[in-house]
Amino acid sequence: MSYRIEKDTMGEVKVPSDKYWGAQTERSRNNFKIGPVASMPMDIIYGFAYLKKAAAYTNHELGVLTKEKRDLIAKVCEEILAGEHNDQFPLVIWQTGSGTQSNMNLNEVIANRAHELAGKKIGEGEKAIQPNDDVNKSQSSNDTFPTGMHIAAYKKITEVTIPGVEQLRNTLNEKSKEFSKVVKIGRTHLMDATPLTLGQEFSGYVSQLDHGLKALRSTLDHLGELALGGTAVGTGLNTPEGYDVLVAKYIAEFTGLPFKTAVNKFEALAAHDAIVESHGALKQMAVSLNKIANDIRMMASGPRSGIGEIIIPANEPGSSIMPGKVNPTQCEALTMVCAQVMGNDVAISIAGTQGHYELNVFKPVMAANFLQSAELLGDACASFDEHCAKGIAPNRKVIEQLLNNSLMLVTALNTKIGYYKAAEIANTAHKNGTTLKEEAINLGYVTAEDYDAWVKPEDMVGSLH
Amino acid sequence: MSYRIEKDTMGEVKVPSDKYWGAQTERSRNNFKIGPVASMPMDIIYGFAYLKKAAAYTNHELGVLTKEKRDLIAKVCEEILAGEHNDQFPLVIWQTGSGTQSNMNLNEVIANRAHELAGKKIGEGEKAIQPNDDVNKSQSSNDTFPTGMHIAAYKKITEVTIPGVEQLRNTLNEKSKEFSKVVKIGRTHLMDATPLTLGQEFSGYVSQLDHGLKALRSTLDHLGELALGGTAVGTGLNTPEGYDVLVAKYIAEFTGLPFKTAVNKFEALAAHDAIVESHGALKQMAVSLNKIANDIRMMASGPRSGIGEIIIPANEPGSSIMPGKVNPTQCEALTMVCAQVMGNDVAISIAGTQGHYELNVFKPVMAANFLQSAELLGDACASFDEHCAKGIAPNRKVIEQLLNNSLMLVTALNTKIGYYKAAEIANTAHKNGTTLKEEAINLGYVTAEDYDAWVKPEDMVGSLH
Amino acid sequence: MSYRIEKDTMGEVKVPSDKYWGAQTERSRNNFKIGPVASMPMDIIYGFAYLKKAAAYTNHELGVLTKEKRDLIAKVCEEILAGEHNDQFPLVIWQTGSGTQSNMNLNEVIANRAHELAGKKIGEGEKAIQPNDDVNKSQSSNDTFPTGMHIAAYKKITEVTIPGVEQLRNTLNEKSKEFSKVVKIGRTHLMDATPLTLGQEFSGYVSQLDHGLKALRSTLDHLGELALGGTAVGTGLNTPEGYDVLVAKYIAEFTGLPFKTAVNKFEALAAHDAIVESHGALKQMAVSLNKIANDIRMMASGPRSGIGEIIIPANEPGSSIMPGKVNPTQCEALTMVCAQVMGNDVAISIAGTQGHYELNVFKPVMAANFLQSAELLGDACASFDEHCAKGIAPNRKVIEQLLNNSLMLVTALNTKIGYYKAAEIANTAHKNGTTLKEEAINLGYVTAEDYDAWVKPEDMVGSLH
Amino acid sequence: MSYRIEKDTMGEVKVPSDKYWGAQTERSRNNFKIGPVASMPMDIIYGFAYLKKAAAYTNHELGVLTKEKRDLIAKVCEEILAGEHNDQFPLVIWQTGSGTQSNMNLNEVIANRAHELAGKKIGEGEKAIQPNDDVNKSQSSNDTFPTGMHIAAYKKITEVTIPGVEQLRNTLNEKSKEFSKVVKIGRTHLMDATPLTLGQEFSGYVSQLDHGLKALRSTLDHLGELALGGTAVGTGLNTPEGYDVLVAKYIAEFTGLPFKTAVNKFEALAAHDAIVESHGALKQMAVSLNKIANDIRMMASGPRSGIGEIIIPANEPGSSIMPGKVNPTQCEALTMVCAQVMGNDVAISIAGTQGHYELNVFKPVMAANFLQSAELLGDACASFDEHCAKGIAPNRKVIEQLLNNSLMLVTALNTKIGYYKAAEIANTAHKNGTTLKEEAINLGYVTAEDYDAWVKPEDMVGSLH
Repeated sequence: MSYRIEKDTMGEVKVPSDKYWGAQTERSRNNFKIGPVASMPMDIIYGFAYLKKAAAYTNHELGVLTKEKRDLIAKVCEEILAGEHNDQFPLVIWQTGSGTQSNMNLNEVIANRAHELAGKKIGEGEKAIQPNDDVNKSQSSNDTFPTGMHIAAYKKITEVTIPGVEQLRNTLNEKSKEFSKVVKIGRTHLMDATPLTLGQEFSGYVSQLDHGLKALRSTLDHLGELALGGTAVGTGLNTPEGYDVLVAKYIAEFTGLPFKTAVNKFEALAAHDAIVESHGALKQMAVSLNKIANDIRMMASGPRSGIGEIIIPANEPGSSIMPGKVNPTQCEALTMVCAQVMGNDVAISIAGTQGHYELNVFKPVMAANFLQSAELLGDACASFDEHCAKGIAPNRKVIEQLLNNSLMLVTALNTKIGYYKAAEIANTAHKNGTTLKEEAINLGYVTAEDYDAWVKPEDMVGSLH
Repeated sequence: MSYRIEKDTMGEVKVPSDKYWGAQTERSRNNFKIGPVASMPMDIIYGFAYLKKAAAYTNHELGVLTKEKRDLIAKVCEEILAGEHNDQFPLVIWQTGSGTQSNMNLNEVIANRAHELAGKKIGEGEKAIQPNDDVNKSQSSNDTFPTGMHIAAYKKITEVTIPGVEQLRNTLNEKSKEFSKVVKIGRTHLMDATPLTLGQEFSGYVSQLDHGLKALRSTLDHLGELALGGTAVGTGLNTPEGYDVLVAKYIAEFTGLPFKTAVNKFEALAAHDAIVESHGALKQMAVSLNKIANDIRMMASGPRSGIGEIIIPANEPGSSIMPGKVNPTQCEALTMVCAQVMGNDVAISIAGTQGHYELNVFKPVMAANFLQSAELLGDACASFDEHCAKGIAPNRKVIEQLLNNSLMLVTALNTKIGYYKAAEIANTAHKNGTTLKEEAINLGYVTAEDYDAWVKPEDMVGSLH
Repeated sequence: MSYRIEKDTMGEVKVPSDKYWGAQTERSRNNFKIGPVASMPMDIIYGFAYLKKAAAYTNHELGVLTKEKRDLIAKVCEEILAGEHNDQFPLVIWQTGSGTQSNMNLNEVIANRAHELAGKKIGEGEKAIQPNDDVNKSQSSNDTFPTGMHIAAYKKITEVTIPGVEQLRNTLNEKSKEFSKVVKIGRTHLMDATPLTLGQEFSGYVSQLDHGLKALRSTLDHLGELALGGTAVGTGLNTPEGYDVLVAKYIAEFTGLPFKTAVNKFEALAAHDAIVESHGALKQMAVSLNKIANDIRMMASGPRSGIGEIIIPANEPGSSIMPGKVNPTQCEALTMVCAQVMGNDVAISIAGTQGHYELNVFKPVMAANFLQSAELLGDACASFDEHCAKGIAPNRKVIEQLLNNSLMLVTALNTKIGYYKAAEIANTAHKNGTTLKEEAINLGYVTAEDYDAWVKPEDMVGSLH
Repeated sequence: MSYRIEKDTMGEVKVPSDKYWGAQTERSRNNFKIGPVASMPMDIIYGFAYLKKAAAYTNHELGVLTKEKRDLIAKVCEEILAGEHNDQFPLVIWQTGSGTQSNMNLNEVIANRAHELAGKKIGEGEKAIQPNDDVNKSQSSNDTFPTGMHIAAYKKITEVTIPGVEQLRNTLNEKSKEFSKVVKIGRTHLMDATPLTLGQEFSGYVSQLDHGLKALRSTLDHLGELALGGTAVGTGLNTPEGYDVLVAKYIAEFTGLPFKTAVNKFEALAAHDAIVESHGALKQMAVSLNKIANDIRMMASGPRSGIGEIIIPANEPGSSIMPGKVNPTQCEALTMVCAQVMGNDVAISIAGTQGHYELNVFKPVMAANFLQSAELLGDACASFDEHCAKGIAPNRKVIEQLLNNSLMLVTALNTKIGYYKAAEIANTAHKNGTTLKEEAINLGYVTAEDYDAWVKPEDMVGSLH
C-alpha cells in the first residue's frame, strides 16, 4: 500500500495515498478500533456536507471567505451528497464524543478534494483550501456535529419514518372502513367480551398511529433548531455578525426543510434534548406498532387451532421442518424493530443526561441510535404494509362462529333484567355447556321473543367509531 | 374483629363490619397479597370519585338515574374527594390489570355509604344504591380506570410537575441575568475551553427547561381525552345516547380542566399511548434536570480541592464522620429522582406495548409509575429550587483565577494568525508551564500590544444569549 | 405540637418532643419534601439496626466502647428490629445520595432512646450516648448505608424472592408430571406446529425458573460482601485494627446469613455493582415469569372463543359490566410486576454508573428499587401459585379437538416421503379444507395404513423432557 | 443482471445467477427491505456453519446421512468459516423472528455450493444435496438459530469481551501497584474528603472488573447449553436416537468450547434466558466501566482549570477550533459504548419476555444486540487500555497541593477530640480561609505538636487495599 504524509498540529501521519482524508482522520482510524469500520452513519456525513456548503456560502456572504474558496468547498459537498465519496469516511461511532474526528474527516476530505479540483495534486504544494481555517471557518466540531445530527435526523423522520407510518396508517384506515360491517367478538383480558366490528378494532389502530404521528410532528420544531454559530462553547466566538441566522437559512434552502438557528446555543451544544424528545415520539410509535402487530398475529393465528379470525398473506414457507407452515413474519420483523427502538430510547436518554458544562460528548451514539430507529420504523411499516396489512382479509366463517358461541352477549340484558340475573344466566350456561338463550328462558328471566329482540350482536356494536 | 356478609355474583364474603367496601374488594384483598397494602395511588381513587359523580349527573340528565340516586352518589364522591374515606381503599397496584377491583372498590364504598346517607344501616335491607347497576351505570372498569388515570395524571402534571419545574426555571432565569457579567472559563470534554459567562451557562439550563415544559404541555391534549363512554370494549354498549360527550363535560366542569371525550374509544381502552406520550415528556425533563444538577454540583465541588466556581447553600452537616463537610444534597436527591423517572419510563413503555385486542391490562402499573414520576419531578424541582438554586452564588475569586490560567484563550488568535500558529503557542505554553502571552511573543507571532488587544476574555463571550 | 431543642454542628433545631430523632433528621424532613413521607424502606432501617448493634459489639470487643454503651446501643437496636420504633424514621428516599441522613436518623434515635433506657429524660443532661461518637463509632454513612442495603437486599431475596419463586416452581413441576400424558398441539409463531405434551410445555417453565434461581443464587456471593470498615473513603480511617472482619462476623451471626467483609472497600463505597448484579438476576426472573404468565393466559383464553386448552381458577367476578366474566387476573398482576422490575433494572443500572471518585451517591434509589423488585417478585409468585398455578387443569376435550385438526402432523411424513411432498399434502388440505389423511391418499403419496401407522401424535412428542 | 430459477414449496423464484442462495433467501431479500442489507451478523452465519457441519457428522454417525453428503456439507461449512462466502448472506436482522430465513440461507448456499463441489453446475440436474432434507436434516430453524446464537455469543465473549476487559484490568492493577504510595485527597459527593492513595482508588476499579468478570463467567454455563436436537417444538421429532448429545459433542469439538446439549429443549426454543442472563453480566460490566472512565476523565480534567491530578495520553488534536486542546477521547468512546450496552440490555430483555408457547420469535434482534455489546465492550476496553490506561501518570505537584489544602484532614482528630470540636475547627478554617492547624491551635483544642503528630495524610490511608 502506498502512503503520503499528512500533518496536523501534533505532527506527521502516513495516510493511504488513494484517500482524500488527512492526519486526524488517520489518527482516529488507528486509535478507535472499536466495532466494524465506518460505522458512523452516512446520513451524518451528508448532514455535514449540507452544513459545510452552507457555512461556505455564509462565510463568503459575510466577507470572510473568497468566492473561489466558497465554490470549491460547495463543489465537493455536492459530490459528497451525490454519493461519490462514500469510501472516504472510515470512522466509527465510538470515537471522541463530540464527533470532532468526523468533522475533521469532512474538513480534510473537502480540503484535499478541493485541492485536486483546483488543479493541484494531493500532498503537493500549499493546500488550496485549509481544513481548519477554510472548510471549518466560523465552525467548531461542537456546533457542527449537532447541526449535522439534526439535519440527518430531521430528514430521516420526514423522508422515511413519517411516510412509512402514514402508508401503513392509510391501509389500516381503508381496512377499517372495509370491515365496518364485520361484527365479531370482542376480547378483554384475552377473554370473550361483548362484540364490536372488525372495522372498529382497526379504527383503534388508526387512532393510535394518528396520535403518534401528531406527537412525532410536534417534536420537529425543536429538532429544527440548529447549533451552528455557537462554535466552541455556544458564544459564537470567531463567527462574523449575523452568521448563525444566515447559515441556518442556507441550510434550510439547501435541504428544503424549515431549519432555523437555535434559540439558545448553550443548550444546543451541551444538551441534546431535541434528540431525546423526537426519539421519545419514535418510542411511542414503537409502543403503538407493537400492540397493532401483536393483535394481528393473534387474530391470524392457526390456521386451524388458533383464533383464525383474519387471514394474512402467505409470503414465504414458514418452516424448514414443518411443511406447509405459514407464519406472521412481517409482524415479527416489526415487533423486533419495536424492541430495538425501545432499547435505543434508553441508550439515547442515558446519553442525554451526561452533558457536562458546555458540551455533551455522547453525540455519535445518540445520532446512530436515533437514525437507526427512524429508519427501521419507517422501513418496517412500509414492509408490513406492503406484505401484510394490504392483504388482510376477514375469515367470516370463523368470526361468525366465535361470535355466536360467546357468553358475553348476555351483557345486553343488563339494562333489561339487571347485572345479577344476567350473570346467573351466563354462569349457568357456562356450567352446563348450554346457550344463553336456553338458560335465560329456563331461569324464567326472559322470554324467547324478548331474548331474540334484545340480544343482537349487530345492535351491540354502538355507533362509536 | 367483627364482620358482616356481603355478596357478589360468586357468592358470600365476610367483610370487616367497620368498612364500607363489599365482596369484590374483600376478594381482591385476599387474592392479591403483593407488596405493601393500599398501594393503589390515592390520586386514582380521587380520579374515580370525579368520574363517578360525573357519570351520576350524566345518567340523571339522560334519564337513566333518579335525582335521588344521583345526589346520593355525588355526596359520597364529594366526601371521598374531601379525604374523609381514605381508609376505605385497601387494594394494591398488583391486582387485575384492568383495575376492575379498584373500580368495584369505589362502587361498593359509594353504594354502602350512600345506603347509610339514605338513613339505612349497612348490611340491612335492600341496598338503596346498587354498586353495579347504579354507581357503575353506563360504565365499565375498562373505560373508568383509564378515565380515572387520565384525570389523576393530568391533575398531577398541572398541579405539581409544571409548577415545580417552572419555579426552578424562573430562579435559574433570574440567576442567568444576575450572572450575565461573570466571565468564566468554558469547559468541553471536561477540559478547559474558551470563555463564556456564568449567566450564559445558566441560560442553557433555562432553555432546556423551556423546551421541556413546551414538550410536556403539548402532550396534554392527548391526555385530556377520556375513555368514558366506551364501556366494555369501546362500543359504548349500555350507555344512553350522548353520554360520552356529556360525561366528559361534567368531568371538565368538576375538575376545572379541559377534558373531552376520546376521539376513538377503541384506542382509549386498548392502548395507553397518551400515558406513554406524557411520560416521555417527563423522561425528557429528567434528562434535562440531570444535566443541570450535575453541572451545579461539579461547579460547586471542593470547597478547596475541586472546581469551586460557585457556592451553594449548606443545608445540613454532610457527613457522620467528616466534621464540617457540606454536600450538594439537593443535586443528589434530584438526580436520584431522574434515574427513577428513566426507569419508570421503561416500565410504562413495556406496559404500553402489551395491550391485547380490546384492552390493555397493565393499567395500574402504568398509572402508579406515571404518578410517581410526575410527583417526584415536581417536588424535587421545588425542593432543589428552594434549598439550592435560589442560594447559588459565584465564587468570583476562583472563577477569575481559573479563567486567567486557561490556555484556550489562544482561540481568539485563530482569526488573526491561523489555527496552526495558535496551536503552537498553546502547546509550547503547556509544555513549558508558561503563559500564552509569553510564548506568543517568544515565538514571534504576536506583539505584546496585539496580544493584549486581541486576547480579552470579556470580548470572547459573544452576544449570543 | 410541643417541641424540644436538638443540636448538631450547624446549630439548634426544633424537634417534635414525642420523637427520638434529633437535629439532622429534622433538617432532612424539612429540606426534602419530595414524594410521600417515610418512603425510605423499613428494611433499610432494620439493616442499619443489625449493623449498629454489630458495630457496638465490635467496638467493645476491640476496646473502643464500654460494655455499658454497647449494651444500651444493642438494646435499642433490638427494639427497632422488633418493630417498636417504626414511627421514628420519617425520612424519604430522595435525600442525600449517601443516605447520611438516614444513618443519622438511626444514630439519633438510638442515642436518645438509649438515654431514656439509661434512666434519663430526652433533652436533659449530657447524652448518655453520643450519636456520632458512640453509635456511629468506627463508621461513616458511606460504609453503613451500603452495608444496610446489602443486609436488607440479601434478606429479602432469601426470605421472600427465592421462597416465592420456588413455591411456584414446585407447583409447575408437579403440573408438568401430572400433564405428562396430555398430548396437545404445539405452537410456534402462534401458529399450529407439531405436537408435544402439556407436561413438556410446563417442564420448559420449570427449567426457566431453575436457571433463574441458579443465576440469582450465584449473585449472592457478591451481595454478601459488606462495606463496613471502609468508613469515609474506603481506607478504614478511625477504625480499630481487625474491625472490618469482626463486624462482618457479628452481622453474619445476628442475621444468620453468610456475610463477610468486602474484598475491596473502595469498590464497596464507590460502586454498587453487587446490587446491579443481583438485580440483573431479578430482571432475568421477570423475563422468565412474563413468558410463563403470558402462555398460561393465552392457553386459558376463552372460555368459548379463545384457545381454551387449560382452565384456571375463577377467583373473582371479572367485570363490572359483563356478567359472568372470569379473567386471568393473577397473570395480569404478575406481568405488571415483571414490567415494574424491568423498569427498576434501568433505574438501578443508571444509578450504578454514576459513582464519582470515592462514593456512589445514588444509594437510596438503588436500595428502594431493589427491595421493591425482590418483594414484588416473591409475593407475586406466591400469589400466582396459590390462586392460579395450583388450580390449573387441562380442558381435554378442547385439547384433543385442536390437536386433531392440525395440519402440522404432516411433519411426521418428512422422513418417510420428504419435505416437499409433505408440504404438498399440507398445502392441499389447507386449500381444500380437508384432512391430511384424505389428501395424502388422494395425492398417492401414502396409503391409509401407512398414514395411520406414521402419523400418530402420541409418537411425535419424543422422549425429550 | 442474469438470473436462474430456484424453487421452494411455494413455487419459482428468480435468483441472481452468481449467487449460491435459493428461493427462500431471495423471497426474504424482497420481503424484508428493512434497514441496511446483510445486517444479520456474520458471527451468526459462522455459528450456523459450525452446527451444520456438526449435524452432518452426527447424522452420518447415526446412520441417516451418507458419508459423501456429510463430507460435501462439511467442506462448504469450512469454506464459509474461512470467510470465502461472506457475500452469500444478504439477509437482514428484521426478518422472521425465528431466523428461519437465515437458516434456509445457509441450507441453500451449502446445497448449491455442494452441488458445485460434486462437479455439477448450479441450477442443473437434481440437487446433489437437498437444502431441507440433507443440510437441514434432524434440524429445525427453531433449534438451529438459538444454537448458532449461543455459539456466536459464547465465542464473542471468550474471544473478544473477556480478553479486552482482562487486558484493561491488568493494566489498572499494575497502575494500582505503581501508585500505591501516591497519597491524594479523597472525594465523596464530589467534595473534599479524607485522603487515600491513587493506588487504592485504582484498586477499586480492579475489584469492580474482577467481580464483573466473575459474574460474566458464571453465566457461560447456561450459554453453553445448545437447543440443537429439539427440532420444531422441543420434542426432537425427526431426530435419530442420541442425536442431541452427540451433535453438541461435535460442536464442542469443532469450536473448542465446552458446549453441551440443553437440559430442557422446550426452554431452549421458547425462551432465551441464557442470552438475557449473559447480557445482564455485560450490562453490569458497562455499569462498572462507565464509573471508571468517568473518574479518569474527571481526574484528568484541565489541564489548568480542572482537577488535573492525573495526566492521560494526548492521542490527537482535540478541537477543530481550539488550538492545542487535548481531550479524554478514549473515555468518551468507552462511555458511549456503555450507554449502548445499557440500551441493548433493554431491547434484549423486552425481546426475552415475548416468547409465546413453543417459540420465542425475537431471536435475531436478541442475537444482534448481544453480539454488538460483547464486541464493543471488548474492543473499547482494549482501545481504552492501549491508548489511555497504559499511559496514565500522576501529576504529583497538583495532587500534593490539593491534598494539603483540604479541610477534611480534620477527620483524623475525631478520635482525639471528638466529632463536634473537630467540626468547629473545620468550619472556622472554612469561614476564615485559614488552615486547619491555625484554627485548631487558635481554638485551643490541639497543640501544634499534637496536630503535626495526629494529622498526617500518609497515616490516614489505612492498610486496607
